Amino acid sequence: MEDFREIGRRLSNWGRWDVDGRRDERGTTNLLTPERIAAATGLVRDGKVFDLGIPFGPGGPQPGGGRINPVLLFSETGADQNYPGAFHYADDYVFMPLQSASQWDGLAHVFYDDLLYNGFPASDVSPHGAKHLSIENQAKGLVGRGVLVDVARRRGVEWLEAGEVITPEELDATLAAQGTELRGGDIVAVRTGWRRKFLSDGDAASFMAGEPGLGLACCEWLHAHDVAAVCSDNWAIEVLPGEVEGETLPVHMVLIRDMGMTLGEILDFEELSEDCAADGRYEFLLTAPPIKFRRAVGSPINPLAIK
Amino acid sequence: MEDFREIGRRLSNWGRWDVDGRRDERGTTNLLTPERIAAATGLVRDGKVFDLGIPFGPGGPQPGGGRINPVLLFSETGADQNYPGAFHYADDYVFMPLQSASQWDGLAHVFYDDLLYNGFPASDVSPHGAKHLSIENQAKGLVGRGVLVDVARRRGVEWLEAGEVITPEELDATLAAQGTELRGGDIVAVRTGWRRKFLSDGDAASFMAGEPGLGLACCEWLHAHDVAAVCSDNWAIEVLPGEVEGETLPVHMVLIRDMGMTLGEILDFEELSEDCAADGRYEFLLTAPPIKFRRAVGSPINPLAIK
Amino acid sequence: MEDFREIGRRLSNWGRWDVDGRRDERGTTNLLTPERIAAATGLVRDGKVFDLGIPFGPGGPQPGGGRINPVLLFSETGADQNYPGAFHYADDYVFMPLQSASQWDGLAHVFYDDLLYNGFPASDVSPHGAKHLSIENQAKGLVGRGVLVDVARRRGVEWLEAGEVITPEELDATLAAQGTELRGGDIVAVRTGWRRKFLSDGDAASFMAGEPGLGLACCEWLHAHDVAAVCSDNWAIEVLPGEVEGETLPVHMVLIRDMGMTLGEILDFEELSEDCAADGRYEFLLTAPPIKFRRAVGSPINPLAIK
Amino acid sequence: MEDFREIGRRLSNWGRWDVDGRRDERGTTNLLTPERIAAATGLVRDGKVFDLGIPFGPGGPQPGGGRINPVLLFSETGADQNYPGAFHYADDYVFMPLQSASQWDGLAHVFYDDLLYNGFPASDVSPHGAKHLSIENQAKGLVGRGVLVDVARRRGVEWLEAGEVITPEELDATLAAQGTELRGGDIVAVRTGWRRKFLSDGDAASFMAGEPGLGLACCEWLHAHDVAAVCSDNWAIEVLPGEVEGETLPVHMVLIRDMGMTLGEILDFEELSEDCAADGRYEFLLTAPPIKFRRAVGSPINPLAIK
Repeated sequence: MEDFREIGRRLSNWGRWDVDGRRDERGTTNLLTPERIAAATGLVRDGKVFDLGIPFGPGGPQPGGGRINPVLLFSETGADQNYPGAFHYADDYVFMPLQSASQWDGLAHVFYDDLLYNGFPASDVSPHGAKHLSIENQAKGLVGRGVLVDVARRRGVEWLEAGEVITPEELDATLAAQGTELRGGDIVAVRTGWRRKFLSDGDAASFMAGEPGLGLACCEWLHAHDVAAVCSDNWAIEVLPGEVEGETLPVHMVLIRDMGMTLGEILDFEELSEDCAADGRYEFLLTAPPIKFRRAVGSPINPLAIK
Repeated sequence: MEDFREIGRRLSNWGRWDVDGRRDERGTTNLLTPERIAAATGLVRDGKVFDLGIPFGPGGPQPGGGRINPVLLFSETGADQNYPGAFHYADDYVFMPLQSASQWDGLAHVFYDDLLYNGFPASDVSPHGAKHLSIENQAKGLVGRGVLVDVARRRGVEWLEAGEVITPEELDATLAAQGTELRGGDIVAVRTGWRRKFLSDGDAASFMAGEPGLGLACCEWLHAHDVAAVCSDNWAIEVLPGEVEGETLPVHMVLIRDMGMTLGEILDFEELSEDCAADGRYEFLLTAPPIKFRRAVGSPINPLAIK
Repeated sequence: MEDFREIGRRLSNWGRWDVDGRRDERGTTNLLTPERIAAATGLVRDGKVFDLGIPFGPGGPQPGGGRINPVLLFSETGADQNYPGAFHYADDYVFMPLQSASQWDGLAHVFYDDLLYNGFPASDVSPHGAKHLSIENQAKGLVGRGVLVDVARRRGVEWLEAGEVITPEELDATLAAQGTELRGGDIVAVRTGWRRKFLSDGDAASFMAGEPGLGLACCEWLHAHDVAAVCSDNWAIEVLPGEVEGETLPVHMVLIRDMGMTLGEILDFEELSEDCAADGRYEFLLTAPPIKFRRAVGSPINPLAIK
Repeated sequence: MEDFREIGRRLSNWGRWDVDGRRDERGTTNLLTPERIAAATGLVRDGKVFDLGIPFGPGGPQPGGGRINPVLLFSETGADQNYPGAFHYADDYVFMPLQSASQWDGLAHVFYDDLLYNGFPASDVSPHGAKHLSIENQAKGLVGRGVLVDVARRRGVEWLEAGEVITPEELDATLAAQGTELRGGDIVAVRTGWRRKFLSDGDAASFMAGEPGLGLACCEWLHAHDVAAVCSDNWAIEVLPGEVEGETLPVHMVLIRDMGMTLGEILDFEELSEDCAADGRYEFLLTAPPIKFRRAVGSPINPLAIK
């Protein structure tokens, strides 16, 4: 297998969207041009909305380890309030990793060889946050044409198993079976069924221990199709255990650091998948604004697919 | 002035969207019908996107008191990592009130006389969260036709002053001056300039001490126009100090508890306002999905206006 | 078995330490009189110190559920700092339940029949905290004569099993075997070996699922001996599953709510136990100041036993 | 003025307490020998206890900036509970900087020239915490003879002003006026009145903007007297603005990094000061156990002075 660094070099988008000497910090979401956004809104027929975010709170897939499920606490419930008149209110606080449930990975989230996407130094990320490539750079996104690639459905399985590699050929075959064509600037949603597995067995440890997902060869495919962003119902987009001996999350490294691609993880395509199968339309307007956390490397999301 | 309870009774939407004995938990966002959502996507011409959320983090408008600005901390920066191969990554945590910056107020956020919207008991809100009316009920929203009502611009001021009441007549006059007509199910965005003031002076204490905003009479106006949701660039939608002696946030009480209206607060309409003034179009596709916090009474948001 | 309410009534300390109409908020720590504190310092011979707190952080016994292990995050590590001159520093934040590891239970922690200790209404505890009986009331404590009652050692086992009840008779027999006599105002430390079990198997779920501990009859014993506070190496002092059909944590209810006794939980007596067995002295100066959290119902602690 | 690095080299304790090739991680608290601890308990006459910690919560001196006041939230208040029987309980969570109120600075808290105390590399501190010199190393401390050096009282002022330098000569003169002699292994408490100022005016910004405190020359004095730890009622021990042009917190750098001295900050000596003045005894048993946060660079404390 080709070395991931070679692939990264070949598919690199460094400098591609720099303007007037100002180094780009958005990466492939630059492909979400106004024209494409306008065109994507034309996909909406019935106005049916699908929420692709999972619930944030107890029972989520990350009960511990480096990340935890969001902890919601109430600073006000209406008790012990004495405002003038009848008024009572409730307020809530949350403590959570920005990567704890449905989320965008920002471009400062993963790096190697001391460089972030577009050549920014790894030292740009510190306890003070990401000086460059923060998720704030995606503030106007991500809106565009979404395409569901329902790998699990085409295979006829509830879910693929951990370690099963999705290849470019399978992506092509799935799209062909669906009758869907990719266009430049698409946001690709790959359904592995891994969310369904979690909904079925509730086993967080198993959900996190591995997963089916994209193989390294898919990086080239995403690049060739000018994909603006990729998201999935697993937690890392890519297959785990990975294909490359001695490397950790190579697809992350190539997609985020070399190509500048924002990744959407731990989404729920179950209802959407049913609907697409029913009407044969696997394309939709996708709108998934990140919360504008300053200097953050990710953001919780609740992407909406509108058909 | 009519008693706020009287107004609330008159404008009550309790029971209006109940189906088959199942009590409604969404309120006026029921007005965001598929037809209207589909129609709203037809408003998009150029595909230009405006992000209406403010930055989340240090420097926000709520440095202390019952709420604080979001605190972002990094659990990983790439330092002290020894994963197999080249891989390095960064991860971040946040601690924040869900009402700390741009946000939807959910329907369990405000109540009086021991009842929440649609008659749910106030005891439904506890340290365990909101059993009913949680922001999760808005998971598929809020998408629809957005209309900017640029009160500050029509007045020709940078911002209205704290305590200045916006009346239904002024809303009508502003829409007339803009050449905008409301339709059923609109999401109305009222620009008071209060955000501009904060951007101009950075004075959080002054931002929170009072504000210009909707008067109580606007509740009827919002009801009569079948408005699906209302949002503003101030922090409470309504004028502060309020108009009603001895009552706290009466507009909140009527809108949220009686009408079941979701409120969007602390938004930034500055760039959008410039654009609307430039092309004369004050309508747009608005998409503002809440994060699906379980049992929460609000959610951080970054609404996107697409023209 | 006598009803726990009957026991509570019989052993009630309500009103016992009220002064001039001011209702007491300290409970049995009133027994830690200056004379007794001074006497307790006289127990120190060698100046050897034993730290009875467990580590706070990953790997603790409460990985999830209503409580979690403390999460420590670094706001500063020295990276990305540019202070004048050579200075660098590190700072850390923690998010944690005050009951997540070694802790004092304050007197507002447990209640029944709508009343807290000394007749304060349950409504004194709200999202705003404990208006009365806050842990702040123990700010000057807890210092006194500590006595280890090493039940596991006398039984000759590494640890007692979950559900095994410790009776007053066994406490007496253990003290007799140790040659220790109780005095008024003692802080009693009951060693069940449950901490050793956790250190041995690292099984948090098993640690929390049940435990050996004090039976309900011990309340009377603690009362009769004028014990100022009781602590243990398990997480709830009392035996779990409990002895009383249909009641939850009855020992807590009697000790905290009726007797006003502060409880110390999840301590580590392993090193202390070895030392006491070696020199035959099971008494020591115990000093365990709570952190003065405003309106809190507990506090993390690291009690020091000094011999 | 001598360069702080020269002072640091001269007063360095690096290697002083290494044993059998194991590098020391405790620093000057090694001076808290069992003999001295035992002797310190002999200072107690009446058993009167003074709590030197300040309250943790709203109203504290660090409302914002890099640190915030502790935020306490209740996960349980007794509401919405249905345990078998009568049981109800309250539980609380805290989010806070470990340096937000009364605290020990651990030995990994401050460093320069890429080295921590005793030569550990600065890279030992990362988002994963302090691999060495963590506050856990002080788990058995800090217990010993405490000595109040009441500078403000001797001067006859409520408080010294920000920027006023305390010199070794003034420390000596104060001790002489008090009739107190230092012994090896003492824990020195310097009262500047800065806490009294905050209690008097409640002005957090002013409290943090500067402070009276130890000058750089005091490092040598602390070293010469074999002081085990130093604490104060200001927030940084040392005078601010500092004496050294172009250097930040030089006293911290020498004390923590070169001498390995644990510092206690933001304490309250007001009640203790009154008592010492009244009976002329400025010495006491001091016990101030840190909470055993894993890999932390500090710990909240509530030191107890017992006379």
